[in-house]
Amino acid sequence: MDYFEKTLKSDTVYDGKILRLDVETVLLPNDNTATREIVRHPGAVAILPVTKDGEIYFVRQYRKALDMELLEVPAGKLEKDEVPYECAMRELQEEIGFAADKLTLLGSFYSSPGFSNEIIYVYKAEDLTPSQLTPDEDEFINVVKLDIKESLKMLNKGLIRDSKTAIALSLGLLM
Amino acid sequence: MDYFEKTLKSDTVYDGKILRLDVETVLLPNDNTATREIVRHPGAVAILPVTKDGEIYFVRQYRKALDMELLEVPAGKLEKDEVPYECAMRELQEEIGFAADKLTLLGSFYSSPGFSNEIIYVYKAEDLTPSQLTPDEDEFINVVKLDIKESLKMLNKGLIRDSKTAIALSLGLLM
Repeated sequence: MDYFEKTLKSDTVYDGKILRLDVETVLLPNDNTATREIVRHPGAVAILPVTKDGEIYFVRQYRKALDMELLEVPAGKLEKDEVPYECAMRELQEEIGFAADKLTLLGSFYSSPGFSNEIIYVYKAEDLTPSQLTPDEDEFINVVKLDIKESLKMLNKGLIRDSKTAIALSLGLLM
Repeated sequence: MDYFEKTLKSDTVYDGKILRLDVETVLLPNDNTATREIVRHPGAVAILPVTKDGEIYFVRQYRKALDMELLEVPAGKLEKDEVPYECAMRELQEEIGFAADKLTLLGSFYSSPGFSNEIIYVYKAEDLTPSQLTPDEDEFINVVKLDIKESLKMLNKGLIRDSKTAIALSLGLLM
């Protein structure tokens, strides 16, 4: 590494249900100091479910942080000690009611490395079979099915605004 | 909107240099309550600089939140009252020392809508001309130039791990 910031002081100012916020004083390479506000997150998965007929399943859900509904691929946070692959299988069932015989890792990405350590593992799910839909009772989502062409058109037209969904479509369908 | 969460109570638990953290109690559609931890962020831009010869400029920089260096496209936070277009022009000059005669908005994306309102405006910059490099004195970055084919290969091989960079490459080069 060419550059590195040594932590001189670290305060956890909030430790909640999902997030922890650390405020750190760091030593810069030029010996100045700076403050880094860092949101610690458990990590998450996102899944691009593609049917044999070339259709994609999305979920439309309200996001309190934005006060709007977004169209996203199924996704969810890693639970304690859960590996990404199992998390992807669980979320696929909980959110759209399918099991996948084929689950391929497309890549993993840092959603906002300037202030958070959140990592998102992005999977493509194929060979889908209906399973029992057991949604979280406090999760309110609508399942939306679009064909591949329509999905890419929505991305191109700016109607898909969620980062992990844009990445899942790009990596799963364009590369 | 099919679903909506009414705020019953909102506490700002931290208000810092870049981030504000609000913890909200919300009313769910089934009349249960839930806690939402929301990171407020000023928004940001990311720029894909493409030369006439088909080369892309990246920056490699240390990210304290991850304790590692990442290869990213030039990017930066919106300053107070700054519009995204001007921010993109400013960051292009500050980070890689170029002005662009052509700056095209590829799209705008929410980096992590589950817990943050951060939006990233993604631009493609073309017709680049060298300008005076005036870096932040507290910013430590290395400029890296790769051709388009090599850039896409790095994305495909999982060597590009930053969301905004993956989106910029996908939207700017594949669609």
